[in-house]
Amino acid sequence: MRIARFSIEGNVAFGVVEGDESTENGPVLDIIKGHPFAEFERSGQRIPLSKVRLLPPVLPNKVVAIGRNYAEHAAELGNEVPEVPVAFFKPSTAVAGPGDPIVYPSFSSELHHEAELAVVIGRMCREVPRERVKDVILGYTCANDVTARDVQQREKQWARAKGFDTSCPLGPWIETELDPADVAISCTVNGELRQQGRTGAMLRSVEDLIVHITEAMTLLPGDVVLTGTPAGVGPLNVGDEVAVTIEGIGTLTNKVIKRG
Amino acid sequence: MRIARFSIEGNVAFGVVEGDESTENGPVLDIIKGHPFAEFERSGQRIPLSKVRLLPPVLPNKVVAIGRNYAEHAAELGNEVPEVPVAFFKPSTAVAGPGDPIVYPSFSSELHHEAELAVVIGRMCREVPRERVKDVILGYTCANDVTARDVQQREKQWARAKGFDTSCPLGPWIETELDPADVAISCTVNGELRQQGRTGAMLRSVEDLIVHITEAMTLLPGDVVLTGTPAGVGPLNVGDEVAVTIEGIGTLTNKVIKRG
Repeated sequence: MRIARFSIEGNVAFGVVEGDESTENGPVLDIIKGHPFAEFERSGQRIPLSKVRLLPPVLPNKVVAIGRNYAEHAAELGNEVPEVPVAFFKPSTAVAGPGDPIVYPSFSSELHHEAELAVVIGRMCREVPRERVKDVILGYTCANDVTARDVQQREKQWARAKGFDTSCPLGPWIETELDPADVAISCTVNGELRQQGRTGAMLRSVEDLIVHITEAMTLLPGDVVLTGTPAGVGPLNVGDEVAVTIEGIGTLTNKVIKRG
Repeated sequence: MRIARFSIEGNVAFGVVEGDESTENGPVLDIIKGHPFAEFERSGQRIPLSKVRLLPPVLPNKVVAIGRNYAEHAAELGNEVPEVPVAFFKPSTAVAGPGDPIVYPSFSSELHHEAELAVVIGRMCREVPRERVKDVILGYTCANDVTARDVQQREKQWARAKGFDTSCPLGPWIETELDPADVAISCTVNGELRQQGRTGAMLRSVEDLIVHITEAMTLLPGDVVLTGTPAGVGPLNVGDEVAVTIEGIGTLTNKVIKRG
């Protein structure tokens, strides 16, 4: 099931995406009564997807991201594969939705795309045993861990390099039935393929990462875990359109703009 | 003015602290109508401070913390003074209130106290010019940037080492009229003095830090900026009572407990 969050006439709602571009009249949203973090009913009230503005599929309290989780990507930046996962935060103020602009930050001149599988947490959890990880996950979406690479190299901790406003596009929706073990993930810039990998190449699996993170901290419903990026990261410039596609989920597209 | 957040009979409210231990019958809270992030009125309804449970004075969306902002502290851990401030996040799930336990994390065997001046943001802001910094600050409180030092040394980014649950005690209240330029800050463990410094020794001032952080990201009302710790950091063990005192604010006390 695909769950989108959207605004229509000033109201925000969740809806189940039915059909796709091949369906007559295109995909529609069946509006959810309430929210998807508990049992919910579909209202039966349907709106064409083309009539709404999609929002980030969740508003996370925090995003916990993992660096260097694909060996080829660690190598391309001259880094060794870490003995323990490199965990860092992106704040809620970094989150952007599908179609939202990525605003080129004033303090960087080297912005990079990083296509990532994002895990959306469904329930409050702490010290999750490996065999229970699937129970705390609502689903998966696409993410772009946009990074000011020059700032990342200058500043020892990455709060500014990876936490600036609009550095965390998420979307287009949450797929609740994905098996994340080995799906294709890719990134294009202006239609040109830049990153291509499979989640099967992750050094630590989704289960590993949730166990590792929740050993230390509580995750809340709507929190998001980013699982690292495959090789092929590279520059984003003002005017570029960057698209992250994950097999079984869909495509997250954002355009890079100059700060107004 | 001192603004505390507290719970009484299951309700959460803000109140202005009037009087102190020297006042007849001790300090009282004059309950605020609404919240302190906009103009507010005092209700005139007064409750003895001893009758309520103080909560963290704010529930921040994010805490942005600064490492190595006192030269003597950087030196005691064998670190150089950084050319740019070392900025990292502590998540909302790390926040604890005055009197709340610090729960010793299972994945560390070297927990350290770090007494810090905390800035409480009063209004949404981005790219704050130096001369406007004072306008975005609601006030100041005490913080303990509790750190799993062994984990910090093993893990390149500090999400787990400094972001675990209860790693960010804040309190006891927000002092809105403090001049933070040069106040005494100290930390005791079981009554024994461990850290002693003055905010005048900060390498970057509160103004510097707010300019630096908001160059990259939006701060929201209730967000908190931690300004670094003076020399003298050291171990916390289960059973210890740790107290952070800042001149003009008060004392934040927490006890370290074993995870149940």
